[in-house]
Amino acid sequence: MAAAGRLGEFEFIARLLRPLAASFPGAFELGDDTARVPLPPGEELVVKTDALVCGVHFLPNHPPGRVAQKALRVNLSDLAAAGARPVAYQMALVLPDHIDDAWLEAFCAGLAADQMTYGIALCGGDTASTPGALTISITVLGGAPPDSVLGRGGAQPGDLVFVSGTIGDGALGLLADTGRLREADVAGRAFLVDRYLLPQPRLALGMGLRGVASACMDISDGLAGDLGHIAARSTVQAVIDTERVPLSAAAAAVTARKPALLETVLTGGDDYELLFTAPAERRGEIATIASSTGVPVTEIGKVEQGDGVIVRKDGTPLALNRPGYRHR
Amino acid sequence: MAAAGRLGEFEFIARLLRPLAASFPGAFELGDDTARVPLPPGEELVVKTDALVCGVHFLPNHPPGRVAQKALRVNLSDLAAAGARPVAYQMALVLPDHIDDAWLEAFCAGLAADQMTYGIALCGGDTASTPGALTISITVLGGAPPDSVLGRGGAQPGDLVFVSGTIGDGALGLLADTGRLREADVAGRAFLVDRYLLPQPRLALGMGLRGVASACMDISDGLAGDLGHIAARSTVQAVIDTERVPLSAAAAAVTARKPALLETVLTGGDDYELLFTAPAERRGEIATIASSTGVPVTEIGKVEQGDGVIVRKDGTPLALNRPGYRHR
Repeated sequence: MAAAGRLGEFEFIARLLRPLAASFPGAFELGDDTARVPLPPGEELVVKTDALVCGVHFLPNHPPGRVAQKALRVNLSDLAAAGARPVAYQMALVLPDHIDDAWLEAFCAGLAADQMTYGIALCGGDTASTPGALTISITVLGGAPPDSVLGRGGAQPGDLVFVSGTIGDGALGLLADTGRLREADVAGRAFLVDRYLLPQPRLALGMGLRGVASACMDISDGLAGDLGHIAARSTVQAVIDTERVPLSAAAAAVTARKPALLETVLTGGDDYELLFTAPAERRGEIATIASSTGVPVTEIGKVEQGDGVIVRKDGTPLALNRPGYRHR
Repeated sequence: MAAAGRLGEFEFIARLLRPLAASFPGAFELGDDTARVPLPPGEELVVKTDALVCGVHFLPNHPPGRVAQKALRVNLSDLAAAGARPVAYQMALVLPDHIDDAWLEAFCAGLAADQMTYGIALCGGDTASTPGALTISITVLGGAPPDSVLGRGGAQPGDLVFVSGTIGDGALGLLADTGRLREADVAGRAFLVDRYLLPQPRLALGMGLRGVASACMDISDGLAGDLGHIAARSTVQAVIDTERVPLSAAAAAVTARKPALLETVLTGGDDYELLFTAPAERRGEIATIASSTGVPVTEIGKVEQGDGVIVRKDGTPLALNRPGYRHR
């Protein structure tokens, strides 16, 4: 680890980061050049890196603990999509001068809470100063049996399409968080903003779907666009019905008031729910997995021969303006 | 992977990043949520993350290919210090709007060249936009037998202290690169700048030292300060003699002209040479390893009971103003 501001590099590491690594022997109290991450025999490393940038992926007024948790959880959500078990993470924290000790303390407290929730630990990384924007890059390390890891390329014609949880809350939450969702009441706004700020990685569900789902990914760039990735990698067509897409009560209320928001629901980002396909004969098994992991799973469509994604409303294909969100 | 500017996110990934991952099956052509990194039985994962920030760790006028290689090599140097074999890397590339396609092409060409040199491949990561400074965060993944991984904590009284290569070139090269080293001639400046821009990770030497060195690290923050880390982690004292510290011809010439630069040599950063300790009876073995890997190794001091680092000149301890560089 190198550099940070205010507390000073070594003090920041010693006081706030080292406790996050205390439970992980291979982190060597962040006192060595590298970390060692042992995996049990029969598990293969599954790895993912995502960076969050202030002003792009989160805003300066967001609570630092929530920012930390989102940075960790967007990566954990990818592990969930792979059916992997989280083990540890590395973090590169790039800090502008105006970040103060209180911010760092709240940020690290958020990480500490999530470490308990997900049974992981910091195992190393880097801190550095920047003349620019606060940037958090996290690499999560997980494990899964080599032949069980889920991916995007296995969907087959005849498979069904499923999603976990509810869709569109993240995109509506972003609108609410930036004062652009007058269609929601106070409670609805609070619910949606919370869904936007704090993804719920579906790790137990992902592990349950090992050997059951034919393809799986997490929805980070919008349901329609992300389903397009599965269709492209699997060289199939996916057909979904908007009536079957599960909505939260808050999302249902705002789309009832302003039907145009349905497109935001279908194409907006930040859901962090699992989107997966499975043969029709696994339907019962999937209901059991959903029930045992406590995560609702909804069948929303089917896989056919062809390519691309068809989103139907009352049986008629919709023309969507922007099928997938691109972070710009 | 998410976002980038100019070429567009998906085009940048498809045209420039995907070829960097082509040789690594577990990268799934960068088309999946996660990567899988299989390690052979008997190897444990060794991992390291370092971030480089424009304006802090490199300058806007540095050649993009060299910036890419430095970002990769500072991490490979840490693997070398652990005696680990490099396997693959993940990269979070955070780009301001002014970075153009030519820059990205040269950057990725630098990575491609180093992938051939070091036998590794890109296995995933993220691209994102930033309103701030260009930031490159790389996580390297390596493997080593669990009981052979080197660390900082094993130095024993009676051990000898060794370094690889030559010391101080990086710090003098930084001075030369920023027009602050008039003591060097043209050839000397070019040599030193090259040493500053392009670290030479001592991977073969590091692997050779498995089971031989008692402690090992790479020198990134200056010889005196980094030796202090070994002394602290091993709870010993290290005593080195400046006369024995190996200097390049260019460094010897400038320190002869301006003796005050000796402190820069001893305390400056960016050497990326290995600093290690070993029992005196392994001296011959170390000479053989140095010879077979083609990396010069020089004995510069010894380990004693006590704490801290003593740097002697003509037998008298020096008082150094700043024993270790802190990136601020």
